[in-house]
Amino acid sequence: MNPPKTDARRHHDTEVRGFASDNYAGAHPEVLAALALANGGHQVAYGEDAYTENLQQVIRSHFGPTAEAFPVFNGTGANVVALQAVTDRWGAVICAESAHINVDECGAPERVGGLKLLTVPAPDGKLTPELIDRQAYGWDDEHRAMPQVVSIAQATELGTVYTPEEIRALCEHAHAHGMKVHLDGSRLANAAATLNVPMRTLTNAAGVDILSLGGTKNGALFGEAVVVLNQDAVSHMKHLRKLSMQLASKMRFVSVQLEALLARDLWLRNAGHANEMAQRLAEGVRSVHGVEILYPVQANAVFARLPHDVSERLQKRFRFYFWDEAAGEVRWMCAFDTTEDDVDGFLAALKEEMAR
Amino acid sequence: MNPPKTDARRHHDTEVRGFASDNYAGAHPEVLAALALANGGHQVAYGEDAYTENLQQVIRSHFGPTAEAFPVFNGTGANVVALQAVTDRWGAVICAESAHINVDECGAPERVGGLKLLTVPAPDGKLTPELIDRQAYGWDDEHRAMPQVVSIAQATELGTVYTPEEIRALCEHAHAHGMKVHLDGSRLANAAATLNVPMRTLTNAAGVDILSLGGTKNGALFGEAVVVLNQDAVSHMKHLRKLSMQLASKMRFVSVQLEALLARDLWLRNAGHANEMAQRLAEGVRSVHGVEILYPVQANAVFARLPHDVSERLQKRFRFYFWDEAAGEVRWMCAFDTTEDDVDGFLAALKEEMAR
Amino acid sequence: MNPPKTDARRHHDTEVRGFASDNYAGAHPEVLAALALANGGHQVAYGEDAYTENLQQVIRSHFGPTAEAFPVFNGTGANVVALQAVTDRWGAVICAESAHINVDECGAPERVGGLKLLTVPAPDGKLTPELIDRQAYGWDDEHRAMPQVVSIAQATELGTVYTPEEIRALCEHAHAHGMKVHLDGSRLANAAATLNVPMRTLTNAAGVDILSLGGTKNGALFGEAVVVLNQDAVSHMKHLRKLSMQLASKMRFVSVQLEALLARDLWLRNAGHANEMAQRLAEGVRSVHGVEILYPVQANAVFARLPHDVSERLQKRFRFYFWDEAAGEVRWMCAFDTTEDDVDGFLAALKEEMAR
Amino acid sequence: MNPPKTDARRHHDTEVRGFASDNYAGAHPEVLAALALANGGHQVAYGEDAYTENLQQVIRSHFGPTAEAFPVFNGTGANVVALQAVTDRWGAVICAESAHINVDECGAPERVGGLKLLTVPAPDGKLTPELIDRQAYGWDDEHRAMPQVVSIAQATELGTVYTPEEIRALCEHAHAHGMKVHLDGSRLANAAATLNVPMRTLTNAAGVDILSLGGTKNGALFGEAVVVLNQDAVSHMKHLRKLSMQLASKMRFVSVQLEALLARDLWLRNAGHANEMAQRLAEGVRSVHGVEILYPVQANAVFARLPHDVSERLQKRFRFYFWDEAAGEVRWMCAFDTTEDDVDGFLAALKEEMAR
Repeated sequence: MNPPKTDARRHHDTEVRGFASDNYAGAHPEVLAALALANGGHQVAYGEDAYTENLQQVIRSHFGPTAEAFPVFNGTGANVVALQAVTDRWGAVICAESAHINVDECGAPERVGGLKLLTVPAPDGKLTPELIDRQAYGWDDEHRAMPQVVSIAQATELGTVYTPEEIRALCEHAHAHGMKVHLDGSRLANAAATLNVPMRTLTNAAGVDILSLGGTKNGALFGEAVVVLNQDAVSHMKHLRKLSMQLASKMRFVSVQLEALLARDLWLRNAGHANEMAQRLAEGVRSVHGVEILYPVQANAVFARLPHDVSERLQKRFRFYFWDEAAGEVRWMCAFDTTEDDVDGFLAALKEEMAR
Repeated sequence: MNPPKTDARRHHDTEVRGFASDNYAGAHPEVLAALALANGGHQVAYGEDAYTENLQQVIRSHFGPTAEAFPVFNGTGANVVALQAVTDRWGAVICAESAHINVDECGAPERVGGLKLLTVPAPDGKLTPELIDRQAYGWDDEHRAMPQVVSIAQATELGTVYTPEEIRALCEHAHAHGMKVHLDGSRLANAAATLNVPMRTLTNAAGVDILSLGGTKNGALFGEAVVVLNQDAVSHMKHLRKLSMQLASKMRFVSVQLEALLARDLWLRNAGHANEMAQRLAEGVRSVHGVEILYPVQANAVFARLPHDVSERLQKRFRFYFWDEAAGEVRWMCAFDTTEDDVDGFLAALKEEMAR
Repeated sequence: MNPPKTDARRHHDTEVRGFASDNYAGAHPEVLAALALANGGHQVAYGEDAYTENLQQVIRSHFGPTAEAFPVFNGTGANVVALQAVTDRWGAVICAESAHINVDECGAPERVGGLKLLTVPAPDGKLTPELIDRQAYGWDDEHRAMPQVVSIAQATELGTVYTPEEIRALCEHAHAHGMKVHLDGSRLANAAATLNVPMRTLTNAAGVDILSLGGTKNGALFGEAVVVLNQDAVSHMKHLRKLSMQLASKMRFVSVQLEALLARDLWLRNAGHANEMAQRLAEGVRSVHGVEILYPVQANAVFARLPHDVSERLQKRFRFYFWDEAAGEVRWMCAFDTTEDDVDGFLAALKEEMAR
Repeated sequence: MNPPKTDARRHHDTEVRGFASDNYAGAHPEVLAALALANGGHQVAYGEDAYTENLQQVIRSHFGPTAEAFPVFNGTGANVVALQAVTDRWGAVICAESAHINVDECGAPERVGGLKLLTVPAPDGKLTPELIDRQAYGWDDEHRAMPQVVSIAQATELGTVYTPEEIRALCEHAHAHGMKVHLDGSRLANAAATLNVPMRTLTNAAGVDILSLGGTKNGALFGEAVVVLNQDAVSHMKHLRKLSMQLASKMRFVSVQLEALLARDLWLRNAGHANEMAQRLAEGVRSVHGVEILYPVQANAVFARLPHDVSERLQKRFRFYFWDEAAGEVRWMCAFDTTEDDVDGFLAALKEEMAR
C-alpha cells in the first residue's frame, strides 16, 4: 500500500533506539491507529465528546465506579492540577527530595500552583510513615505552609516500587493526619506489571485520593489523565484544568489514546515488556565486573555506577544519561519498544568498553 | 486494506458536522499521516529531535531567518508563555475586552503568569492606536501595572481581520511607547488567506515581536507554537515553556504536525477553504430576511442576530453557539472540513425555521 | 517639657498642608499617644497580644458579635487578603473599572492572589445590580473565571457614597447568585459620617460578608484590618494573612492604633471633620465661575474640572493631583487635619488664579 | 506631666518580659519619640517624603554611596521583594533548610514570588561554598528551576554568625557561578555587634548584592528595608515593592524609625545589649548540669537541650518556645530590653526546676 500523502517528511532512522528515556520512544502502533478511528466528523470540543465519555467507563473498569478521569497534556500538568485540587492556598505537599515534582518541573508546582513542597530525603525514592513525619506537623501554625497532601510516585524516580501494603500504610498515616494522598503514576503501569496486581490495588484500594495516570511513557504520543478517586476530596476539576492550561480542545484525541492503552491490556503489555527488558539488562549488567547496580530494579529503569570514561565511550554508541555525573552514576531506561537485541547489543558494548 | 488493529473503537458518526467551532473538527488526514512518519525509533525528548529541528527551517521559510518556534500544547499555553516572555513581574498587557486571553482562559494569564490585563472596548474586536492610548500611560507610576505589551488577535475573536497597514500602525505606536506586540494567531492562517498575503506580512514584517501560531484550528490534532520574531525581546523561552507546563516530551509529534501544515500549503488550503465556506454561508444568510450579519465576514466566522426561537429550533438540527443569548446573537464557524453541502443544508434549514 | 531624646531629627515643616491626599496627613495625636500605652514589657507576637484581643471587643461593638478583625499593614494587603478569603483558585471578582483594586495596586490582586477582576464601567464609581449583571454569568463555564465575589468601595474612589439600601440591594443580588460581597472600607468612616449611620449599617447589616477597614486615612500611622462579618464565608484567615506577607510581629502597635480610633468616637470625629472641610471646599468652588464639580461631594474628596493652566499655577501653591490631566480634571482631598484656614486659603488662591 | 489623651487603654503589665522572641519586645523609647518628630503637616505619600529622602543618606553612611533603601513593612516582605528583584520567572534560591524563608513564611516566597527554594541541610544554619554546590548546577537545564541567588541569614536562625571572610567566600563562589547573593539581615545588627565590624563589612564589602535590613527586632515598632547594594542587579524596585503589597503610604513613619536606629548608634546599642544578655544567659546555663547549649552563642539567641518536664515547668514562669519539642530543644531569645535581672531571675528559676 502507498503511504498516505503528507507534506511532512521522515527525518529520522526508525531503527535507532537507546536507553536514555522511555519518552524517547515513539507511540505504540495501536495507539496511532486509534487516532484514525477518532478522526472525521465533528465532536464537541473541550471534553464533551464521545471518546472522553467512553474513557470514563474504561477508567471505571480499572478504578471502580467513583473514579473520574480528566485528560490532560503532560505529566507536569497532571501533577500540578491534581495537587492544586487537594490543597488550599496555604497548603503544602510532602514529597521525596528526589520526586519529579521537586526536581524536574522547573518549579511549576510553586509558580503555577503556589504550592510549597516539604521534602524528605528518601534513599530509594520511597516515602515511609516515619519519613512523612519529618514534615507532618504544624497544622495550626500560620507561619508554616500547611501539610495537606502527601505525594508519592509509583514507580518512583529511582525505578523502585511500593508494595500495596506500603501504599496503604502511607495512606492511613496521611489520612490520620487529615492529609490526602496523591500518586504520580506516570509509570503506574510498570509498577502494576511488576507486582502483577490491578492498578486499582495500588491506588484507591490502598487509599490514594487522586492520581496522575501516565499515558506518554506507556506508549501514547502524549496525554495523561488526572484520575479523581476520592470525589469528596476535590471540586471544580474542570476549572482547575483549564486555568492550568491543560485543557485540550480536540480532547477526543487524548481520550482515544488512553482508550487504546487501557481498554484491554495494551497498557500492561507495554509496561510488562519494558520491565522485562530492564530485568534482562540488569541481569546482564550483574555479570559485568566493575559495574554496580544501585537500586532494586523493579520497573523499567536500571541505575548503575561504573567508571566515568566507560560511560562516556558507551554514550557514543547508545544514548543514555548520567544521573549523578560526579558520582559516576548513570540511568538506563527501557521502553515498550526496546528489543532483546537492543539489550544484548548494549550489554556487549558495555563489556567491550569495560574491557578496554 | 485492513484497518490497523487497536483496542479502541469508533464512538461517533464521522459524517456529522456542525457550525459550533473550528475545533469541533478533527485533524486533516495529511496531518494524521504525518504522525506515522515521525513514529518509530527513538528520538531525543523535549525538543531535541529531528522534527523540531526541521520545523525551525519551515518556520524560517515563513517568518524569516531570525524566527524561532517553541512548540506547545494549546492556544492558552502559547499565549501565556508568549506574554510572560515579553513582560516583567510588574508588566501588564493591553488588549481588547473581547480578547480570548481576557474572556476565555479562566484567568490563566493572571493566575499562571501573574499578568494584569488592561482592557479596551473594541467594537469589532480590533485595537487601534487610539484605543491603545486609553491604557498606554503611567509607566513611571508604581501603583499602576506597567503596560509592556499590546496583544492583538489576527483574525480576531469576532472574525474580523487587520490589514497589514493596521498592524504596522499598531506596532509602531506600541514600539514608540517602549511596548512589545504579541499576536494571537490561532487563526493567523485564515487572516493570511483572506488577505492573500504571506503570514510574515502580518507579523514580523509589520513589527510583531512574538506570535502564538495556531495549529489546532488549522487542522492539527493539537499543537501550537510560540514563534519568537524579535529575539532581542525575549530570553530563556525554554524555561518559560517548561515552567508553564507546555513542554511536550515526545515533541516530534507536535512538530511533525506543524510541518505537515506549513511545509507546503496545507495551512493555506485548510484556512482558505474554511474562509470560503464562511463566505458562502454569509452570502446565503444575507438573502434571508430577518437575519442580520453583525461583523464583516473576513475569516471563517459568521456572527448573526436572529429571533431567539429560530436559533433554538435550528440548534436542534445543527450544533452552534449563542454568542450573546440575551441579544439573540449567534456564532457560526466553518472549519477546514466544512462542505458546500453542509453550508447549503444549513441555509435551507435556516430558511425553513425562519419561515415557521 | 523637653522633647524625648532621639537620634532622629525633624525634616519637614509641620505647618504645611495641601489637598493631594488624605494619606499625606500624619497621624492623629491621640493615635500617636496610644502607641506609648502599648509599649514596654513583652507581649506575644503575631497577634496573641492583649491589644489585639481587646480590639476584637471594640470591633464587635461596631459590627456585632460575630465580627472578627485581622489587623494588617495596608489597604492593598487588606483587599487582597479579603478577596482571597472568599474566592477559590478559579474565582473572579466583579468590581468597578475605577476600583482601587483595579487601577492602583500594580496588579497585586492578580499577581499575589491569582485573582481575575471582571470590571464594569461605573460612571460615579458605584456598582448597581444591573452593572453587576454585565459580568455575573457563566458559573458553569470552565473557560470563564468564576464570579465569586462582588467588591465595592464605600466611599468610592470618586468620593461618592452608597446608601444602606443600595448596598443591601447589591448584597441581595450578589447572594442570590451565590456570590459574596467585599467592601473596601479604606474610607468607610467617611461614608458613615456622611450618612450619619453606624458602620454596621453599611456593612453586615446590609449583607456585606467581608470588609477592609481603613485606619491609615482615618488618622493612623499605618494599619488596617480585614474584618470578617460572615464567618461561614471564610476559613484559615491567619494563614492567608501570613502568606500574603501582612502579618505584623509586634501587632499590638497596629491594634492599639485601631483601638484609639474606634474605642470611642475618634474615627467619627476625624472622618466627619474631613468631610466638613470637603463640603466647605465644594461650596466655595461652586461660587467660582469656570470651575465645575464632577461628582456629588459625599465624603472627603472634591473632583473638579478647570482650565489646565490654572491647575498648574495652583499646584505651585498647594499640592494636589490631576485625576485626568488630558480632561483637565483634578482631585482635591481633605484630611482629618485640614483646617478651615487651609480651605479658605486654597479657595482664595483658586479665585486668584482663575482671575489671571 | 499628664499622659497624652487617647481613647485607647493600657492592657498589659509593662514589667513582664520573657525569652520567647526579640519581637515580643516593644519599641525602644527613642524610636517612639522619633515618630512624634515626623508627625504633623503633610508629607508626600508612598516614599517621596523628607524622612525617606534623609534615610537614603543614613543608609549610604552605613553601606556606601551606591546603596539605596526601600522601606517595607516586615521581614517576610523584605525577603520576598529582595529575592524577586534578583530572580527571573524561572529563578531559584539556594538557602539553608533552616532558613526563615523556607520554614517560617507560610510559603510566601513560593506563592507571592513564584520562587523555588533549593535547600541544603546546614547543621549550624550557615551555608558554605561546598553546601551551595549541592544545589548549584543545571543552569542550562530547563527542567530545573535555575539557581540565580544564594540567600543567607546573618545572624542565622540558629543564632550563629558568619565571619566577613566566610561571607566573602560565599559571595565569590556565587558570583563565579553567575548567581547573586541576598542577605537576610533581620538581625544584621546583632552580627555586626558580635563581630565588632560595620554592617558594610558583612554586606557589600563582602560582595552581598541585596539586603533585607531588619528594624523590628532591633527596636522599631515595625519596619524593615530592602537595601540594594548592587544597583546593576536590580530594576524597578518600587514596582516590585508595590505589587508585593509592601508599600507604606505614610512612609515617613517607617523611615523615621530606621533613622532613629541608624543615624547614630542606637542600632548598635540595642543589638549589643541583647547579645550581652545572651552571653550572660549562656554563661549561666553552662554552669547548670544537665542543660546543653546546642550552637555557638554568637548573637542574641541561646539554643539548649534540657529535660522536657523542666522546660514545661519553666515555661509556666517565663515565656519561651520549644525549637524541637521531640528532641527537648528550646530557644531562649534576648531582646534590646532584656535586663540583667531578667537573665539572673531566669537562671535561678532554671536551676530550681532542674533541681526538682
